[in-house]
Amino acid sequence: MPRKVYGAIEGGGTKFNCVIGTDPDHVLATHTIPTTNPQSMLDAVIHFFQQALQDHKDIELVAVGVGSFGPIDLNPTSATYGYITTTPKSGWQYTDIVGSLKERLGVPVAFDTDVNAAALGEYRWGAAQGSDPSVYITVGTGIGGGIYVNGAPLHGLIHPEMGHLQLPRLDGDDFFGICPYHTHCWEGVASGPAIASRAGKPAQDLPSDHPVWEIEAQYLAMAITSIIYITSPYRIILGGGVMRQEHLFPRIRYYVQKIINGYLNHPAVLNDIASLIVPPKLGSYAGLFGALELGKQGKSVSAESAS
Amino acid sequence: MPRKVYGAIEGGGTKFNCVIGTDPDHVLATHTIPTTNPQSMLDAVIHFFQQALQDHKDIELVAVGVGSFGPIDLNPTSATYGYITTTPKSGWQYTDIVGSLKERLGVPVAFDTDVNAAALGEYRWGAAQGSDPSVYITVGTGIGGGIYVNGAPLHGLIHPEMGHLQLPRLDGDDFFGICPYHTHCWEGVASGPAIASRAGKPAQDLPSDHPVWEIEAQYLAMAITSIIYITSPYRIILGGGVMRQEHLFPRIRYYVQKIINGYLNHPAVLNDIASLIVPPKLGSYAGLFGALELGKQGKSVSAESAS
Repeated sequence: MPRKVYGAIEGGGTKFNCVIGTDPDHVLATHTIPTTNPQSMLDAVIHFFQQALQDHKDIELVAVGVGSFGPIDLNPTSATYGYITTTPKSGWQYTDIVGSLKERLGVPVAFDTDVNAAALGEYRWGAAQGSDPSVYITVGTGIGGGIYVNGAPLHGLIHPEMGHLQLPRLDGDDFFGICPYHTHCWEGVASGPAIASRAGKPAQDLPSDHPVWEIEAQYLAMAITSIIYITSPYRIILGGGVMRQEHLFPRIRYYVQKIINGYLNHPAVLNDIASLIVPPKLGSYAGLFGALELGKQGKSVSAESAS
Repeated sequence: MPRKVYGAIEGGGTKFNCVIGTDPDHVLATHTIPTTNPQSMLDAVIHFFQQALQDHKDIELVAVGVGSFGPIDLNPTSATYGYITTTPKSGWQYTDIVGSLKERLGVPVAFDTDVNAAALGEYRWGAAQGSDPSVYITVGTGIGGGIYVNGAPLHGLIHPEMGHLQLPRLDGDDFFGICPYHTHCWEGVASGPAIASRAGKPAQDLPSDHPVWEIEAQYLAMAITSIIYITSPYRIILGGGVMRQEHLFPRIRYYVQKIINGYLNHPAVLNDIASLIVPPKLGSYAGLFGALELGKQGKSVSAESAS
């Protein structure tokens, strides 16, 4: 009787991470592939899974989960379900991820956004265990968020695109942001490249007492407050490259409380906000292990739409 | 064998509406009670249900659903579950709604916010049928919203409090709003009383070409756009007194498209926004019939927490 294992792929703008196993404590192999073009990525992914199956004769690959950069098509009735759609990333427009993987791996493939996968990963194994609803936000090259609510990731007309929230402008701030679509949207004023553009040098080179961090914390807090008002989460997890600046956490919590100004009369906001707004427990693997969980659920729970 | 019927109560700041029946097409009786104090309300509600049971000897009241103004406690493990909690409404602070009704009616009582009930009502019988996720927003004396997502209303740490979203200020707008907690929150700048305060006379007395409506439409559009980015709904239903101004709908749709600026590349946003942002099909009864559905589900689906 072969041991049932699952595959997971986290597709990002610079790299694809792969894993085969059953959970964060039972990993058989991992692999990282640079995001060059869809064909190379696909070949490398297939090779990775085939190699793992050769190396471990006693395993059976049951299903694969994918958390991908977007926008992606999550509508199971759509002709382009399972595709990366209108991404600005050259060569990746309308790439059929699910169909290609299913054809070459011969197993069901579950699909979601990278941030919904991360939200699921943190819900299943990380900082949001038992926290329904919870929100995962990544602040890096871009800003995006995923939501786990009522037992599943939130899908909808498209999927959350919260990086483009229109934010109030701080008094005296004359930086209108770098988003080609919007003046003063969240990603436009607070992503890694936005910080670099505002400060004149890369975010990771700025000392923690650089004034730009205080501005950054305020914009992050504005958006997070809106997310709290709309989704009332038990946990908000902030991941991504920018959030490796740990000094941002206390500042963000301070400004969230300041903006809410006592209106949400709940101990989690008033007294214990350090437990409400937290870093990911799975670190940079939240999306990858969330994709693994997606694969497991895709087989057991929603095999119909996933296979 | 008696016919199984359900009761519903929609609790608002000025009146409580009650109904007994099974759905919007099968109503045995309705009643409206002014929101004076909890004891009078409770007595009148009990009297209404008892009278209906006397008038119709062949019926059995199986369960009751309540959609209430808030904030309310929806955490089943809390000591104040089923209470209206920190409302500014005099005499109503920490009123035990669920416990009182259960004790005197002897049936399970399901409980949610008025706007979550309205979202459920429109999902079950109205303009959001089959639309998961969908959002119901009321714009009246206050502003609030409910969300139906992944098969159930969204609860969380508290419940959505989207009326207090912090909004960008329109260029040249020197009205900072009427909210005692926040400068320039949604309810503070766009509720009925905010419109009256801005225009110097009641909203319903303003002609449709009054300049205040163009401002109103822009603030509503800002908040609705944030809600779209975060929850990706298939339908956004706008109810409440202010939304009886039908001329607001095309203006709001125009500004939502303008703010999104083509970023959400989906036909529902680009071409068919008149189907995305709509009035309630159940009119002012969305909350009441949503509460009826709550009662039905409270009995069948979540009897444990509701009884």
